[in-house]
Amino acid sequence: MIMNNLGNLTIILVEPEHQGNIGAIARVMKNFGVKKLVIVGTPIDPIGEAYPRAMHARDILDNAKIVETLDEALENIDLAIGTTAKTGFNYSTERVPMPLSHLPNPEEYEGNIALVFGRESLGLKNEEIIKCDYSVIIPTHPEYPTMNISHAVSVILFYLYTREKTQRIKPKLANRTEKEYLFNFYKKTIDCLEILDFRKPIAIQTFKNLIGRAGLTGREATTLIGIFRHISEIVCNKRENK
Amino acid sequence: MIMNNLGNLTIILVEPEHQGNIGAIARVMKNFGVKKLVIVGTPIDPIGEAYPRAMHARDILDNAKIVETLDEALENIDLAIGTTAKTGFNYSTERVPMPLSHLPNPEEYEGNIALVFGRESLGLKNEEIIKCDYSVIIPTHPEYPTMNISHAVSVILFYLYTREKTQRIKPKLANRTEKEYLFNFYKKTIDCLEILDFRKPIAIQTFKNLIGRAGLTGREATTLIGIFRHISEIVCNKRENK
Repeated sequence: MIMNNLGNLTIILVEPEHQGNIGAIARVMKNFGVKKLVIVGTPIDPIGEAYPRAMHARDILDNAKIVETLDEALENIDLAIGTTAKTGFNYSTERVPMPLSHLPNPEEYEGNIALVFGRESLGLKNEEIIKCDYSVIIPTHPEYPTMNISHAVSVILFYLYTREKTQRIKPKLANRTEKEYLFNFYKKTIDCLEILDFRKPIAIQTFKNLIGRAGLTGREATTLIGIFRHISEIVCNKRENK
Repeated sequence: MIMNNLGNLTIILVEPEHQGNIGAIARVMKNFGVKKLVIVGTPIDPIGEAYPRAMHARDILDNAKIVETLDEALENIDLAIGTTAKTGFNYSTERVPMPLSHLPNPEEYEGNIALVFGRESLGLKNEEIIKCDYSVIIPTHPEYPTMNISHAVSVILFYLYTREKTQRIKPKLANRTEKEYLFNFYKKTIDCLEILDFRKPIAIQTFKNLIGRAGLTGREATTLIGIFRHISEIVCNKRENK
């Protein structure tokens, strides 16, 4: 069985509620060779349940970065993938989760990839999901779809660790700045278009989903930025199309 | 992604040491549609950590069967697969673990399949591994290979739940009695052979491994029982080969 190097993977926990789960997650990270843990909004209690549950992965807790906001956590992350367990209702545009097969094999990309996990009780909020490039969902039994958070981490890390390689090249991912540039030119274009107002946010979110899921490379981003900059200038009447 | 029906799967826990883990395992069983839990040697404490950790899977704890010995747990189980986390040393003949890809897709077999998990501290003892048809190992990072037991259950159930189907027929597994018959005729044959004594247990264990891993069907077992009964009679001089 394949064992991938998950060295460039970061686990981001958003406001975890139970110290024991933080420890359990550190343990399974080490089981699959993942080292970088970032926690938003929850300090690690040095005398709480985190350290005992981490067992031989105390170093991961010692090296964990604690930040105040998800934005801080996502600095330097090129591709952020949210996780969701919510099922059984109609997703809003921003919450269409992808199957696990959409996850990249981190060994096949150059760039920093992060998996973002929400609170035990409520998961990730919509505004947090939106900050991710896209989100994935673990297929579970409809009778009881909600997994324990450390079980969810276990399953996804195992999936990535044993994932087959599908390509030989190692493309460099578009970074956050590049994707924002591209996205902003598109957004500007839409804003200038004479279409019904209620269609605009949908058109914007759909393009954002597309960029997020596509595993866009830096080279592709550069190309598209040029194109959409041009388009936005024409559409917004700042430039004639020659 | 495929979602297999794991309805004919049983989880057997041998002397689990932490009530919380029993509950966590019940939860992830329900997440993947597994219902049958058998616990050897550890009663469920009604006021312990098992029930709170099980969350919406309390019914699995209520219906769990508590038995005294692994033999009792294995009654009516046609194929028992042990799990092991031990790595990094030379396995004795009886402890050669198979990769997860060797696990059967339970939906593709008629018969009762069980996964057997050992104690948190020491795993399964050799004499327990031997009672299983074979054992599997989860690939983990060499720096810290030992997973938390509920994480190990999570990973294996996820693997089975999402496993691709590989065959269209649904063969009936050889049951324990059939396998024992076959095994005993082979053992009798070996006992009668004039080979060095120290070779005999190895020859016996190797054949047992073979039967265990092969996913032997009832029809195949019947054929082989006839053959080895015949062979044993000839080898042990109780019958002439005509």
